[in-house]
Order: sequence, then C-alpha cells, then structure tokens
Amino acid sequence: MSVIALASYAEDKWLQAGGGTALASAVDGHVVAEMPAAADPAAMLAHARRVGSANLRAMTFQQRGKMLRAMADALTARKEELYELSYETGATRGDSAFDIDGGIGTLFVYASKAKSLPDTHVLAEGDREALSKGNFAGQHILTPLRGAAVHINAYNFPVWGMLEKLAPTLLAGMPAIVKPATVGAYLTAAAFRILIEANVVPAGALQLLLGSAGDLIDRLDGQDVVAFTGSADTAAKLKANPNVIAKAVRFTAEQDSLNASVLGPDATPDSPEFDLFVKEVVREMTQKAGQKCTAIRRAIVPAAQIDAVQAAIVARLAKTTVGNPRAEGVRMGALAGQAQRDDVRARIATLREEATLVCGGDVPALLDADGEKGAFLAPTLLRCDTPLTAEIVHRVEAFGPVSTIMPYGDIAEAAEIARKGEGSLVCSLFSHDAAAIGTFLIEAASSHGRMLIVDRDSAADSTGHGAAMPHMVHGGPGRAGGGEELGGLIGMGHYMQRTAIQGAPATLDAVAAL
Amino acid sequence: MSVIALASYAEDKWLQAGGGTALASAVDGHVVAEMPAAADPAAMLAHARRVGSANLRAMTFQQRGKMLRAMADALTARKEELYELSYETGATRGDSAFDIDGGIGTLFVYASKAKSLPDTHVLAEGDREALSKGNFAGQHILTPLRGAAVHINAYNFPVWGMLEKLAPTLLAGMPAIVKPATVGAYLTAAAFRILIEANVVPAGALQLLLGSAGDLIDRLDGQDVVAFTGSADTAAKLKANPNVIAKAVRFTAEQDSLNASVLGPDATPDSPEFDLFVKEVVREMTQKAGQKCTAIRRAIVPAAQIDAVQAAIVARLAKTTVGNPRAEGVRMGALAGQAQRDDVRARIATLREEATLVCGGDVPALLDADGEKGAFLAPTLLRCDTPLTAEIVHRVEAFGPVSTIMPYGDIAEAAEIARKGEGSLVCSLFSHDAAAIGTFLIEAASSHGRMLIVDRDSAADSTGHGAAMPHMVHGGPGRAGGGEELGGLIGMGHYMQRTAIQGAPATLDAVAAL
Repeated sequence: MSVIALASYAEDKWLQAGGGTALASAVDGHVVAEMPAAADPAAMLAHARRVGSANLRAMTFQQRGKMLRAMADALTARKEELYELSYETGATRGDSAFDIDGGIGTLFVYASKAKSLPDTHVLAEGDREALSKGNFAGQHILTPLRGAAVHINAYNFPVWGMLEKLAPTLLAGMPAIVKPATVGAYLTAAAFRILIEANVVPAGALQLLLGSAGDLIDRLDGQDVVAFTGSADTAAKLKANPNVIAKAVRFTAEQDSLNASVLGPDATPDSPEFDLFVKEVVREMTQKAGQKCTAIRRAIVPAAQIDAVQAAIVARLAKTTVGNPRAEGVRMGALAGQAQRDDVRARIATLREEATLVCGGDVPALLDADGEKGAFLAPTLLRCDTPLTAEIVHRVEAFGPVSTIMPYGDIAEAAEIARKGEGSLVCSLFSHDAAAIGTFLIEAASSHGRMLIVDRDSAADSTGHGAAMPHMVHGGPGRAGGGEELGGLIGMGHYMQRTAIQGAPATLDAVAAL
Repeated sequence: MSVIALASYAEDKWLQAGGGTALASAVDGHVVAEMPAAADPAAMLAHARRVGSANLRAMTFQQRGKMLRAMADALTARKEELYELSYETGATRGDSAFDIDGGIGTLFVYASKAKSLPDTHVLAEGDREALSKGNFAGQHILTPLRGAAVHINAYNFPVWGMLEKLAPTLLAGMPAIVKPATVGAYLTAAAFRILIEANVVPAGALQLLLGSAGDLIDRLDGQDVVAFTGSADTAAKLKANPNVIAKAVRFTAEQDSLNASVLGPDATPDSPEFDLFVKEVVREMTQKAGQKCTAIRRAIVPAAQIDAVQAAIVARLAKTTVGNPRAEGVRMGALAGQAQRDDVRARIATLREEATLVCGGDVPALLDADGEKGAFLAPTLLRCDTPLTAEIVHRVEAFGPVSTIMPYGDIAEAAEIARKGEGSLVCSLFSHDAAAIGTFLIEAASSHGRMLIVDRDSAADSTGHGAAMPHMVHGGPGRAGGGEELGGLIGMGHYMQRTAIQGAPATLDAVAAL
C-alpha cells in the first residue's frame, strides 16, 4: 500500500504535498498518509473574504442549492473510494455509511430545503411588523456575513463532519476554510478533493487547511465565523482568544456531552420499549466503536428494572464480534488510534471511582486483527447505583464503546439525573406512557438540544438516538458547548447577519426581492 | 431635597438601604441618592433558580403576557414620580419620555405579542419536519432555561434599559437579577420599586442588585444568561471570565457602536431628503445629549453636498438651547455626570487627530444652569475629509452630543465607509433612489443590526434612526458586541433552549400542548 501524500488547498491551488506527520491505520498501524507542511492562514483568509465571499454572494439561494446538489452528486459518484479509505479509520462498512452517506444526505437535504427559498440574495424572515399606522413598517432580513467560515472538525466523522458544516455555510453564502482533525485527515482530504475535482463550487468558496492553524484565530473579525467540534478544553482555549472576544467573532461550539437515554417507568422486560431500549443502548455503544458525540453515555432505568436491563445489555454485547472492519461478521471495528484508546482507558479508570465495571474494559478476542497493532477495545458497560450523588459519571466522557447504567425512582428523578449532565446534545426516552413523557419533557428539555421519544408505534420509523438529522438542530447547552448546527434553515443563521429593515412598505418589498 | 437611600432587593425582601457611594445630580451636583452596601449574589442566584424560575415556568405564555401588561399599567400609573427623578440624570422631559414611556411601551408591545402565543408552557417553533415516511417526525420547541437572567445595564437608559431586557426575559419564563449602572441607579431603583409594590410578579422573578456584582459571574452555569449593555472593555472582561467560557454561559452583549447615517447620492439642498437628514442628525446629536447607543456618530454625505450639509447642521445646532432640563425652552440637558463629560472631551481630543472641529467642543452658554456644577457640553460637530483612510473616526465613540461628518464618492463607497465601523447597531439612509437603496442594502446589511430607509414619503411615519423598536432586533455584529435584543419573539430566544423533539406525530402534538 502506497502512502498518500496529503496537501492543503489554498487560493484555489493544491499546495506542496506530504513531508509531515505520518498517519497510522487504526486497524493495523501501517502508515496510510503523510500530512503536509503548514499552510499560510493569512493568505487563505484574505482569499476567502475577497474571492470566495464575493462569488458566493453573487449567487442566489436557488443557485447555491443547486451547487449543493452537484456536490452531493459528485461525492455519490465516487463514494466507493471513500468507503475503501474509511476502513483504515477503524470503521466498519456500516459505520462508514453513517459518516459518508450521512454526510452526502445532509447536502441533499439542504439542496432540497433551498428549493423553498426565494431566488434572491436577501432572505426575508418572519412577518412584516407594523411600526406605524402609516407608510412605515419593519422587516427582518438575513444576508451572508462577508468573511470566512472556519470549520474546525473532530476526528470521529471525517466526511459527515465536513459536510454537515459546509451545507448550511455555502447555502447561506459564506466561503469555508475546512480544518479537519489530523487523525483520519486522509479521508476528509479525499472527500474534499472530489468536490474540487468536480468543479462545482466557485473560486475561493472552499479551502482545506491541514495541520496547524497558525495564527488564523488571531486574524478573524466580526464578519468571520468559527464552527468548532471537539473537546471542551480546546474550545475554551479558542473562545478565550483575546481577538475572538475583542472582535465578537461568532463562535459556535459542539463539545463534550454525557448524553442520556431513559427507559420509561412503564417498561418491564415484557414490554416492547424494554427491548427497543436495550437494542438502542447496544447500538450506540458499538456503532463507530462508540465514537459519536451523540452516543448514549448514561443509561437511566427504573430501579426495579436495572438488573434485568443490565443482563439484557450484557447478553447482546457478548454477541458483538470485534475485529478487522473489512472482515465478514465483524460488528465493531477499532477506535481511531492508539492515543484515543489510551484516553478511553484512562477515562474508564476515572469512571470506576464512582461506577463498577460490568463488562469490557480491555481488548477482547478479535476477528482477523491484532490487538497490539490496532486500536481495539471491548464494549464496556459500567454501573453506578448512586447517580443523584455521583458527579464523575455525569461529567467524564469516555469517547469510545462505553456507557454507564444507573437507576432512578420516579420520572421526575430520571429528569433530575439527566440534567446532572449539565447540558447534552441528545436525550432519549423509551416510554409508552403519555404522562411520564410529558413530565420528562417539561423537566429535562432545557438541558438538551434534541430529545427523542420512542415507543412501540414509532420505533420502526425512528431515525435513532445517535443520528443528527439535517432537519433538526444538533448541539446542546452548557457542557455540550452551547452551539447549534443543522436544523435546516436554523443552521444557516450562524453564517448570516439578521438586520431589521425599517422603511416604507414598498421599499421593504424591494429589499426582500434583492 | 432629601437624599434617597437606595436598597437592593433580594430573596423578595428589601435589604439595608443607603450608606454607600453618593450619587450626584447631573444638573447641579447635589447629592440625589446613596447606594447601599453590597448584596450577596450567591443567595440571589439561588433564589432566582429555585423560586423565581419555578414560579415563572408554572405560568403559561398567556399568563406571563398578562403579567407584563400589569407591570406596564403599574408604571404608567406612577410615571410622574419617574419623570421628576429623571431630571436629575440631566434629561429633558422629552428625553425622559424616550426612556420612561419607551420602556413602558416595550412592556406593552411584548404583552401584545404574547396574545399570539399559545396558552402553554412549551413553544412550538417552525414546521413539523418529516423525518420518515411513517410514524416518526420532528418538531422544534422552545422552553425557558432554568437558571437566572443577569441583566447588566448601562447608565444612559435607567428605565428603558431595565424594561427592554425584562420584557422578553419574563415572557420567556426566566427570573431576572437586574444590575443597573451606578450612575442614575436611583431612577432604575424607583421604577423597580413600583413593579414590586404593584405586586404583579411572582416571588423570585425580580431581584435588584445595586453596586458590586461580587462573584456573581463566577457562579453562573449553562442554564443562566448574561445580557450586557455597556462598554466593550467591560464586556470583554466578562466574556473572558473562565467560568463563563467553561460553562458556556449564554452571553449577549450590546457595546460600542459607530452608527452611521448616509445621505443618498440623489439628495441636493432642494430635495426633501436633505432636510430630513439634517434634522435627524441634529436630533440624534442632541436627544439625551447624544447618550444613546444608537446615536449617529458618523454622518456620511455626498462629497458635492458636504459643505451644504455642514452649514445646515451648524445652523440648526446654533438654535439648540442647552441648560437646566427643567427650564422652559431648554432643548438639550446635561450628560450623566462629570466623569462622563470628562470622557467625552477626551474622546473628542482623540477624534481631532483625524477630524477637524466644526463647532462645539466645550461648555456652551447655558439657560438656568451652572457649567461647573452640571455636566453640560455643547453639541459638537467634527469633519473628516478622508474617511476611507481614517481609522479613529470609525473606532472611537464619544458618548455624548458628538458626530463626525464625512464625504463619499459613489454609493458603494458610502457602504464601504459605513462598514469601516466594523459592526454597528444601526445605519440609516436618506434617499429616494431605488437603485442606490438596493446597492447600499446589499453592500452594508451584514455590518448592521438595523437599517432605516427614509424618504419624503415615509418620513412622517418614521420612528427615527435612534429608536430601538421592540418589534425589531436591537444589536449589531462585531464592534457592537454581536448581540441581539428585542425583535419581538426573537429576543425571547436568548432566554429559552431550543430542543429538537423527535417522535410519533401524536407524541409531538402532545408535547406542543404542554
């Protein structure tokens, strides 16, 4: 296997490839790719603002929507190249679908949303406001910011992570500088290259920054945006950057999250919701080897059912074959790398200060893989019987196939336990009891960016706890970073300025048609 | 005149009054009031979260709307008390109307907006999203955050500043801790006392924190909100607070702003827009002695008209009588205090590095007032003939009766000059030329939170450059802080969490009715 020499893409040109850090396969440790030398962020920023912004702002929403569709088509045509590379990140074919097809699907949804937008450069928002009884009224409009959108992505979704940020950004009319995580950057770079080679975006609209961001953040201003996904520590460092604060640079962050799933008080081992819950917890633990920001970290169940739930989860996990993601029969692949595995193990050790290990915790028997060379780890279930007084299990995220089961008394207490995560991306409730659903919603909604209610009637059609649908917001308050992405047109708002226009109604009509 | 002993209001009780800093009249320097000793922010925060939040969350939107109306009625019934005190801040009767009636009007508008909201605790937002072809869909909802809203207000609008933040906060369902500026705090405290004595808000919903905030900011979390109005320096300090960053505390800031008003390229001394523009610039310079965050700091005019505009402004300013705001015939009162006057003078000196003084700059002849005892300053016009290369006139805000006139070539250049403010609250354009309006809008909208287009047909009904209407957003990008307040229901969003609810359509219906 030849080593891929990666290159940054700046000012509409590929820069010098390779020569930098070697990127190892998560599966067997061989060198997959080589990072390039650092690019010049100042030049990229200037190009985005001067060329990319002007080109995108000259397009209407309809035109930008067609561009997104062409991007999705280009990726679809060559997606097998991406699937092939994706194995090296540790992903099974199913995991890759979540990343690659999930990302392409996000482009398609935004392309489709664009059809409902006017063929204009200005987006009128909400109703006309009567500010006088005469010839003077108000109208909110949205126009693209004139700077660059800096997308700082996490390693766990090399394709979806890039595309879920690009779709609302480009539809809004802003150029992007994509900065992927170093781990798995070859997969992001491959998808990016397909977009460039398809020649469907205007000059300056897309740039790829591999490796260090240099002083990029120090150069941003109030017309630029940072959309960040990653650790709370890195987010805090960037948000506290004096330039970000002084210039009120828009900053949206999606960071740590101790997502919960709750089994309703009505569930017993005989009820359909019990089985649905167990399957979902196991799926969330094992899909992408648990490396999803939305994965269920806390499984909150009625005290009377905790032993039964635990036994059912353990039984299902025992049937999960771990190993080489290319091998037939493997259900769970590797973590993204050795460093990630070390980190997860360290966090399991921390969690064990409050929780007991039920199963997992170490390298399991593997199918067609070497546990020393690859970053494999067994699905790991922990149990904490005192969630109301516990603190670590609500704060420490082991970013791998790790979940902690915990009991509750009544549904209000379940909500209280969920809230102890201090803000999460998603929380699900498996219940067929309308009163319990109502109480839980009212008591827990403000701590969550998304909530999923699953019962016997909706389960077959459910898109699942972990999937961030492009139609719905993805983000959460507090610990989850306080950001919002996606959510259809809501996600475009980060890349646009809302302006209250006041004037004669005829003038407002003319403005909305610009 | 007896000295008013001010008291904080915490945990539904008035604390010990007076004993602290003396607050001087802006008009003649006599001591109007005395601040109290510092309150305990931890206790206030706990009370807001435990008692105030629970009480407000138990109310529906309709009930909260009725509460806002009762607050407005209570203030209306006793507003003469406020007008009387307001003179001491340097405000004329007209200035006070802007502050006091403007504030009450904001409560009325929000009370009226509430009528269009459902009689529920959950606010459904936007359309139902089809996430499957079967029994599973999505709906965004908004619910109140469960913490406290900390309102940090500026000195220039003691009444409106408090009420424009309270209206969306309380309607959203969050309790508030009001922290007014020390200068003029007696007027805010008087309005606050009327609200408490009217007994129209539930326990814990309103608290008043006079003086130091102590460690309040260090105690906030992701369910709390800070809404700040004031200087960029203070905003930066608060935003960079490690706790604010670590907990992703919501922070909305409205800070410095070099607002511009542009005279269209179509205007000549004979056109109605010329006169309208001159009158608006003079009004914005003199109303509230120019101490409005929305005041016109940069008057951008066609190069061919700059001498004529300058002469017309100077002529009108010459007729502006400055002096004791209680005196008949006085058109402009005092600045908020001696320290504020010193600051404005220092900034005029800085502006003069790039601009020449046309008129004003010192204490003018006064009607019934002493220029040593009171904080009076003449309306001050500056002129900068090189706005494209200038930097200070686009950055330094003299927060008083000060404006700088500057020329432009074509309308795109006017937009470029406006953008050099790097983000402003408001920008107005006086033009009757549809093409110029269109170009200016497209080129300048993303740098402004509000834009006003005035012509001969709409002027009689215009609400004016400086007025932040409750229906429209108030805030701006970049230098203006990147925040948004008001804007009808938009302004409630800062105090609520948006949650994407996914489940069976019947479940979503039930959630929206909670």
